[in-house]
Amino acid sequence: MSELKNDVFLRALLREPVPYTPLWMMRQAGRYLPEYRQTREQAGSFMALAQNPELACEVTLQPLRRFDLDAAILFSDILTIPDAMGLGLQFVEGEGPRFKRPLHDEAAIAQLQVPDLDRLRYVFDAVALIHKELNGAVPLIGFSGSPWTLACYMVEGASSSDYRQIKTLMYRRPDLLHRILSINAQAVQAYLNAQIQAGAQAVMVFDSWGGVLADGLFQQFSLQYTRQVLEGLQREAHGRVVPRIVFTKGGGQWLAEMADLGCDALGVDWTVNLAAARRTVDDRVALQGNLDPMTLFGGEAAIRNEARRVLADFGHVHQGGHVFNLGHGISQFTPIEAVSALVEEVHRASPAYHGTKAGT
Amino acid sequence: MSELKNDVFLRALLREPVPYTPLWMMRQAGRYLPEYRQTREQAGSFMALAQNPELACEVTLQPLRRFDLDAAILFSDILTIPDAMGLGLQFVEGEGPRFKRPLHDEAAIAQLQVPDLDRLRYVFDAVALIHKELNGAVPLIGFSGSPWTLACYMVEGASSSDYRQIKTLMYRRPDLLHRILSINAQAVQAYLNAQIQAGAQAVMVFDSWGGVLADGLFQQFSLQYTRQVLEGLQREAHGRVVPRIVFTKGGGQWLAEMADLGCDALGVDWTVNLAAARRTVDDRVALQGNLDPMTLFGGEAAIRNEARRVLADFGHVHQGGHVFNLGHGISQFTPIEAVSALVEEVHRASPAYHGTKAGT
Repeated sequence: MSELKNDVFLRALLREPVPYTPLWMMRQAGRYLPEYRQTREQAGSFMALAQNPELACEVTLQPLRRFDLDAAILFSDILTIPDAMGLGLQFVEGEGPRFKRPLHDEAAIAQLQVPDLDRLRYVFDAVALIHKELNGAVPLIGFSGSPWTLACYMVEGASSSDYRQIKTLMYRRPDLLHRILSINAQAVQAYLNAQIQAGAQAVMVFDSWGGVLADGLFQQFSLQYTRQVLEGLQREAHGRVVPRIVFTKGGGQWLAEMADLGCDALGVDWTVNLAAARRTVDDRVALQGNLDPMTLFGGEAAIRNEARRVLADFGHVHQGGHVFNLGHGISQFTPIEAVSALVEEVHRASPAYHGTKAGT
Repeated sequence: MSELKNDVFLRALLREPVPYTPLWMMRQAGRYLPEYRQTREQAGSFMALAQNPELACEVTLQPLRRFDLDAAILFSDILTIPDAMGLGLQFVEGEGPRFKRPLHDEAAIAQLQVPDLDRLRYVFDAVALIHKELNGAVPLIGFSGSPWTLACYMVEGASSSDYRQIKTLMYRRPDLLHRILSINAQAVQAYLNAQIQAGAQAVMVFDSWGGVLADGLFQQFSLQYTRQVLEGLQREAHGRVVPRIVFTKGGGQWLAEMADLGCDALGVDWTVNLAAARRTVDDRVALQGNLDPMTLFGGEAAIRNEARRVLADFGHVHQGGHVFNLGHGISQFTPIEAVSALVEEVHRASPAYHGTKAGT
């Protein structure tokens, strides 16, 4: 394995001293980039793009050619696991993902199994290829949806506005939902370990829909299974710790409980005050976030102001850890020059929050 | 004015002792009721229903005939004010509300004015008629959208998934957005005062989209203007205090700041733990909530369990105040018998949390 030239991101996640605040953006390899749209068109469909390791590698690297980002993230879809379970993932233009065979009855749930990882070989091949092509420039992040988030799509069959089907199952047949979640947890764990073995240097669990659960049920049906995933994850690879990030969109009120989850960093969205969040987790974990992606439509002065505000909210990093990110995926309509201004400002303004604390 | 036979709801909002926890449901006059669907069909369109005081009165009273609810809420739309401002509200079947003339440029914003309240006469006529027909059975709640929530629709022109247009305005031309919000605050205040004068015995501000704002900006662009509304509200009518409720969906992390807003109660959604929320607001305000509306799809046993859990989370009411509600509007697909079970359980189980605290 090649030596990492820039490990600021990994060290920040582990709350080690770094010279500046590292930065990457959720969905940084995506539709706002004209070169992404071109590769996507060349592939023919979103799934063809995600399942072709060479093209997945190409789009993963595209944002790094334009911007001075401190990490790459595997280009893939969040629903690869249920697809490998046989649910039949399809993308209908303008409609988002949809499963041909969602879990609509007890028989389907009884048949559900941890998928053969060979069906996800294309993902691990992409990880290995990206790792090689990066050649140690920056670390590569592997990722998966959380057991709960995968279950939402598997039961609803598509994205939902009210999560009525999965919540009906949760209240009426919690045993069946626990079966799905337990299988998902095993699958996610194996999937992330295989990504680590293929070359992922950090991993992130996207609990995108954890925030739709009631307090009390979030802990039982989402957090518990994310914890199970983390417990069986490979801690080191090639002599380095592989840090874990967990992001629950809309999960700001559960940060205290999440700090004990067994991860190194928690992602937070823009509704969270970083100073308050930091006090809540008491620097036991690093924090990743939390600029509103819509800030990138505000023009250069606002972007730079808001970026500095996020840095100031976190404050002097000292014994903590901060990875700058958006609080959600970047919008497909984002102007390229907005991203340039953001990256430039974070790298320009953040060193003041690192190093020896003035006066102490 | 007729004497109130059941003022448990008003007293709970003011944190006075009550014998049980009062209950009403957001959107309780709505599509899950077959009689509502019939009246809606008779009216011809949603706006025709909302603008006809007799029919609005009829649908307001419908849920009270079926269920032992402790309050009625005016049936109306959240967008009556911008419609009266001349933006041209329309409902396209299956698409939700849409404005013919949204605020898409500086000229439109410069022309915006507090509307003549005569254009909203149909709302106040409905309030007066409902008040008369209720004949003191339970209190009547008047309501409005918050200045920010109205502005979201006025600038976006419809509901939005990313609030890109209003956030772009916020970052690029905060002066223009402040102008809209200031006019909205004046309009909402006059609108709620006119509802109080017509017979509303409590008022609620729905800050439905406050939760999409970043921390820091929520305070500047939503909370500040809700505060302005509350500052000018008539405090008493017909010898009784008119309590105020403010509900920011997704606003759980701002409860400490909202407790000083000048309202009597804060609505909270189901992601919030009521015990923690109560500690946060230190019983300075009552809390309203917070059952997940999807619980009503869980069958009778789950509904009763979850209702008891909400009561237990709040705990013994003592010096506090709790109004039972859903954490969001009731779903149109809700079975009637689910609502019956919920109402029955709250009235059956809640007296144990009132009166002299055992052992103290």
